[in-house]
Amino acid sequence: LKDITRRQFVASALSSAAISPLGLAKGAAASAGPVRVDRVVSNVASEPREDAAAPGTDQFSSWQDQGILNLANSPYAKLHNVPVRAVTIENGFWAARREVNVTQSIPTMHDLMESHGRMDNFRRLIGKSSAPEIGNAGCDSHLYKWTEAVAFTLQSGDRPELHKTAEDIIDLVVSVQKPNGYIGTYFVDDRATLSMRPDTQQTGHELYCLGHMLQGAIAYYRATGDRKWLNAGIRMVNDFVLPSYGPAPKLPIISGHPEVEMALVELYRITGDKRHLDLAGYILGGDDRIHVPRQVSIYLFSGTPFTERTQVEGHAVRAMYACCGATDYYLETGDATYWKTLNTLWNSMAGTKMYVTGGVGARAQGEAFGAAYDLPNASAYAETCAAIGNMMWNWRMLAATGDAKFTDVLERALYNGVNSGMSLSGTLYCYTNPLAFDPSAGITIRNPWYSTICCPPNFERTLASLPGYFYSTSSDGIYVHLYDNSILDWHLEDGTGLRVTQKTNMPWDGDVEITVTPAQRSEFTFYLRVPGWAGDKIRVAVNGKPVTGAMAGTYFPIHRHWSPNDVIQSRLGMTPQPLSANPHVAEDTGRVAVQRGPLVYCLEQLDQPNGVDLTDGSLAVSMKPGAEFTSEFKADFLGGIVVLHRDGTVAEVRSPQGSLNSKGGRDALYGPYEDQAELRYSRSVRLTYIPFYAWANREPSAMEVWTPVSKV
Amino acid sequence: LKDITRRQFVASALSSAAISPLGLAKGAAASAGPVRVDRVVSNVASEPREDAAAPGTDQFSSWQDQGILNLANSPYAKLHNVPVRAVTIENGFWAARREVNVTQSIPTMHDLMESHGRMDNFRRLIGKSSAPEIGNAGCDSHLYKWTEAVAFTLQSGDRPELHKTAEDIIDLVVSVQKPNGYIGTYFVDDRATLSMRPDTQQTGHELYCLGHMLQGAIAYYRATGDRKWLNAGIRMVNDFVLPSYGPAPKLPIISGHPEVEMALVELYRITGDKRHLDLAGYILGGDDRIHVPRQVSIYLFSGTPFTERTQVEGHAVRAMYACCGATDYYLETGDATYWKTLNTLWNSMAGTKMYVTGGVGARAQGEAFGAAYDLPNASAYAETCAAIGNMMWNWRMLAATGDAKFTDVLERALYNGVNSGMSLSGTLYCYTNPLAFDPSAGITIRNPWYSTICCPPNFERTLASLPGYFYSTSSDGIYVHLYDNSILDWHLEDGTGLRVTQKTNMPWDGDVEITVTPAQRSEFTFYLRVPGWAGDKIRVAVNGKPVTGAMAGTYFPIHRHWSPNDVIQSRLGMTPQPLSANPHVAEDTGRVAVQRGPLVYCLEQLDQPNGVDLTDGSLAVSMKPGAEFTSEFKADFLGGIVVLHRDGTVAEVRSPQGSLNSKGGRDALYGPYEDQAELRYSRSVRLTYIPFYAWANREPSAMEVWTPVSKV
Repeated sequence: LKDITRRQFVASALSSAAISPLGLAKGAAASAGPVRVDRVVSNVASEPREDAAAPGTDQFSSWQDQGILNLANSPYAKLHNVPVRAVTIENGFWAARREVNVTQSIPTMHDLMESHGRMDNFRRLIGKSSAPEIGNAGCDSHLYKWTEAVAFTLQSGDRPELHKTAEDIIDLVVSVQKPNGYIGTYFVDDRATLSMRPDTQQTGHELYCLGHMLQGAIAYYRATGDRKWLNAGIRMVNDFVLPSYGPAPKLPIISGHPEVEMALVELYRITGDKRHLDLAGYILGGDDRIHVPRQVSIYLFSGTPFTERTQVEGHAVRAMYACCGATDYYLETGDATYWKTLNTLWNSMAGTKMYVTGGVGARAQGEAFGAAYDLPNASAYAETCAAIGNMMWNWRMLAATGDAKFTDVLERALYNGVNSGMSLSGTLYCYTNPLAFDPSAGITIRNPWYSTICCPPNFERTLASLPGYFYSTSSDGIYVHLYDNSILDWHLEDGTGLRVTQKTNMPWDGDVEITVTPAQRSEFTFYLRVPGWAGDKIRVAVNGKPVTGAMAGTYFPIHRHWSPNDVIQSRLGMTPQPLSANPHVAEDTGRVAVQRGPLVYCLEQLDQPNGVDLTDGSLAVSMKPGAEFTSEFKADFLGGIVVLHRDGTVAEVRSPQGSLNSKGGRDALYGPYEDQAELRYSRSVRLTYIPFYAWANREPSAMEVWTPVSKV
Repeated sequence: LKDITRRQFVASALSSAAISPLGLAKGAAASAGPVRVDRVVSNVASEPREDAAAPGTDQFSSWQDQGILNLANSPYAKLHNVPVRAVTIENGFWAARREVNVTQSIPTMHDLMESHGRMDNFRRLIGKSSAPEIGNAGCDSHLYKWTEAVAFTLQSGDRPELHKTAEDIIDLVVSVQKPNGYIGTYFVDDRATLSMRPDTQQTGHELYCLGHMLQGAIAYYRATGDRKWLNAGIRMVNDFVLPSYGPAPKLPIISGHPEVEMALVELYRITGDKRHLDLAGYILGGDDRIHVPRQVSIYLFSGTPFTERTQVEGHAVRAMYACCGATDYYLETGDATYWKTLNTLWNSMAGTKMYVTGGVGARAQGEAFGAAYDLPNASAYAETCAAIGNMMWNWRMLAATGDAKFTDVLERALYNGVNSGMSLSGTLYCYTNPLAFDPSAGITIRNPWYSTICCPPNFERTLASLPGYFYSTSSDGIYVHLYDNSILDWHLEDGTGLRVTQKTNMPWDGDVEITVTPAQRSEFTFYLRVPGWAGDKIRVAVNGKPVTGAMAGTYFPIHRHWSPNDVIQSRLGMTPQPLSANPHVAEDTGRVAVQRGPLVYCLEQLDQPNGVDLTDGSLAVSMKPGAEFTSEFKADFLGGIVVLHRDGTVAEVRSPQGSLNSKGGRDALYGPYEDQAELRYSRSVRLTYIPFYAWANREPSAMEVWTPVSKV
């Protein structure tokens, strides 16, 4: 019955014109016909490429209904994505970031990719460029990811210029496809003999590029219904990969940099071709004909059976993407061993190896996870891509469970460790996202370009896809995950049309007004997310009547007969919350961080009074009883933010007095314990915190998230 | 008058056989004749080398009276060294270490230097070896330093076998002296044209080697009266260096690695040849014909005027040795600019850049000082040589002032950051002396050999010279600096014979009984050192009668008419003292170290209960009111030590519970502040501390000096 219900959820369409006024909802409206989400038949990609441009046939008819993930037929998905186009984000925090993304970040990144030869790498193969090769084996993926960012953008409404640019790139990409189906600019000519060899794929990124191409092609298909790129990708899988690579007697392959796994599962969700799912499973399982040294296998997070992993380790982006692929595989197969491993790994990651910003991958060496609780601040690597991978993985774990703990991590990463990855201007990017910074080392933290330009287009596609993260449907109702001014135009899984509007000033204010308008009076559950940070004084009312029982860190199920224009009012606690880290995190001993709502805050030197030096430990935040944070919205500051204030104390050294432990007083280097350290804090200062994502948007300045504590 | 008094202090000799029973005091007895400490006439070294073995002449007659430094005629020395041979250290802490030094460390290091070609480098030059060259430009210095260690050993009594070995090495060294006076094995043959060029001396160590040769030759001369090596050294200075190098129109030189400065001043104290002092001054002053980039000058701590320095910086050993040389220069010249700079630098070092162990040089890169308060623990470099340099510098600052703050630093370095440099077995050495250690990185902290074998012979010469650090004389009396079972047989500066015996169990016990026996009843001041760590309940009695006024961190002057067998009893506080660091030391935020008497303690993983892990911050020391340290002497443990016990608490993670800040309880990665961190410490443990110097003498084990604090 459950499966039937899932498959029938598009049987009923939005029936009321009154609740479907948005152009962006046309996808949902257009999908009103078929009872079942039909799939592209698996052999379509083996058709001649000339057919790729043919108009959509029946088997392509549901593209408008597919979300970031198309879980409509995934047996082990409890929640199902809504299309990106079904949600319109308006006038608020994310709308502003998304506008910068589309008007600044995406266009300028295109031009930089062009000037750095990323398109010429393709043109050279068809004789249209004689520019020298620039870049490395991973470069194609960055262009695919940029195109995917455009594709997600188009899912929220057409942008003709971007649309045309993306189409030109797609035409260029498919034009290099060889007769055997291969697409790629690196393993050609002299390097062709190295292609797909397990020993070259530690850095070869060949399947990684294929994965990103498939994701880009799928997003573009879901944006436009155009299956040209998608078919080229399917052809590479079906004609090039599947016939030659896989279990014996085929040749063994290793993913090297996980990514293709989730792409193949998503492809399966379109094609229904079980070979695509099985190929993902084969890659996740490793092939024991490939002998990978243990340290290499740890670094690659591939090459050995995924289900033998017991902790997140090695290269953080690889690990996160592998976990995404494995969760996707679980959502289709229900493999209990995978599920056990995924939960073990999630506890390892979220419970022992994640920064408070949601960033992951503590170590620069190998861009890797450190040991459990090894979370240095100043040297934190916390690559933007890894935080995005964390977010993507939690989105999949949430789909499997409906458990709000995954949404809490997703949101933590999104607002902080991901969002810090792009400047307010939209043209400068963090590759690493440290939690403390000393500018005297001369490092520029935000740059317009990196030779490995993975993070910026990853950020761009994430922001472009953001509407798709706001809601999910389930067999019994609807889940709201993220709060911002927005309109959902979609339907319940039983087909009942549903419009949900949010009015809020999140993340600056905790009040959210949600208007729920089903096409007709309907009984279902509205799962209201109560974030982990919302405190214990959460207020929820439906049509003005208080509803009790909402608890932080859960989805609060409101089951009732919903009528058009029913209103949920919720008030989430926005008291700034000082945080301490687990004692195992040696780096944060005696220190405190601050979070308000979903935002982690930081101190930037520029905003502090003279004499405060964030680089030498001389500042402490006062944690004496009665000390409080105050919040102040500053509309004209850093794009409009709530800043926090709190008293701090500075240990001023008038003149070093030697190190005798009986003399030297507060200026001595060492002294008797018994709160001696406290007494040395001699001058009160008023501190100003800004959201972590907003740091490094002015001149270079010291920054810290975890600040020493004083009790005075 | 003052100068006269100084110069006359050997006018009177030990007159009573009753107080001169020690064979080791024969030097002092033998020096009873001359009124003035005569000097080697400066041109003696230019005599033909054949004369070098001639028996001592009048101008050599005072060699037995000279201490580590011969400050008898230094106008700006307030305190004056006593000869090493005047003090016998018996049956106790340092006697045991010194016995290991002489029976294990020095002999085995000789054999290792031989097997690593250090002697063959010399033999090759005289056709007695065809072994390939091993080592680098600094290698000669290490052999000189080893020979100096033997020389100091001989000052405490003959060791015929070591004596013969040293003499063979000295014969070998002087045999390579060229007709122009040059001694050295590196800048010969193809490299001869590079000799003494300023641009080669950043790593050339040429004057550094000369400095160590002079120090070795002086120590050997003071041990034996044999001036063979000394004369060779003087000849290199007088015939090779002085005629060609110095202020224009001579060629410019740079010390590159400071060391020769203090050696030249010490040479001046023997020769009275002002050219030796002036050469030291010229080198300390820099030569503006040499253009050294600023960063290089910082690293070298030479090349620019010493008096323009405002902080200790750059290579720590270079900085410390430069400060030694500059202090020696001040002791002879009284140059006020030097004195101001020295105090500025001392405050910079002791007040902002010194580990609690007395180690200095925080950074491995460049073996260098970091910024003020930049004192990382696990990555502390704290080279043994630098701690020795710190000790040597403070010995000179103490001589200039009689200020106990310098003795406190000297003692801190000696007992901790220096003493950790040699294993209990005497055959393994620390090059770096970190304050926290995680063995999982696979680093072996103690090794029998280093390709740059500077620290082990430096440690050996320091321990061999230790008796010379116990006392000083002044115009008005005598100072005691260090406490251990010992006998001083010497005399006051007015010539009155004086014997002082110490009975104590230091550093394990704070009681010291000092018997003061002047040759006849005499009025003078006995300056009793009250260490900075001695607390505020110091008890002092003379002949059983309490004397009040002793304060920690000072010399307590006991002025009276002293009669033979007068007894001073002092009780110094030995309560284990928890220490905190200045808040500017970010690394030590929320942490506590422990000192008992002169010893800094540490936790070594091996001694803790199961479940304690020093590498991940999960352990905290309880600082709740009423928590105390207990002390326990364990005679059969690590050579016999007092261990300390105290309650600690461990934050045990049963299973990671994610990172939600509202859930997860004590196992969560982050949680609300308000002593949440405290509450996570869930299991009490009994901790055992050992002295820092004794760590890493068993199997590899984690270690830490600064431990997080809990209030539970």
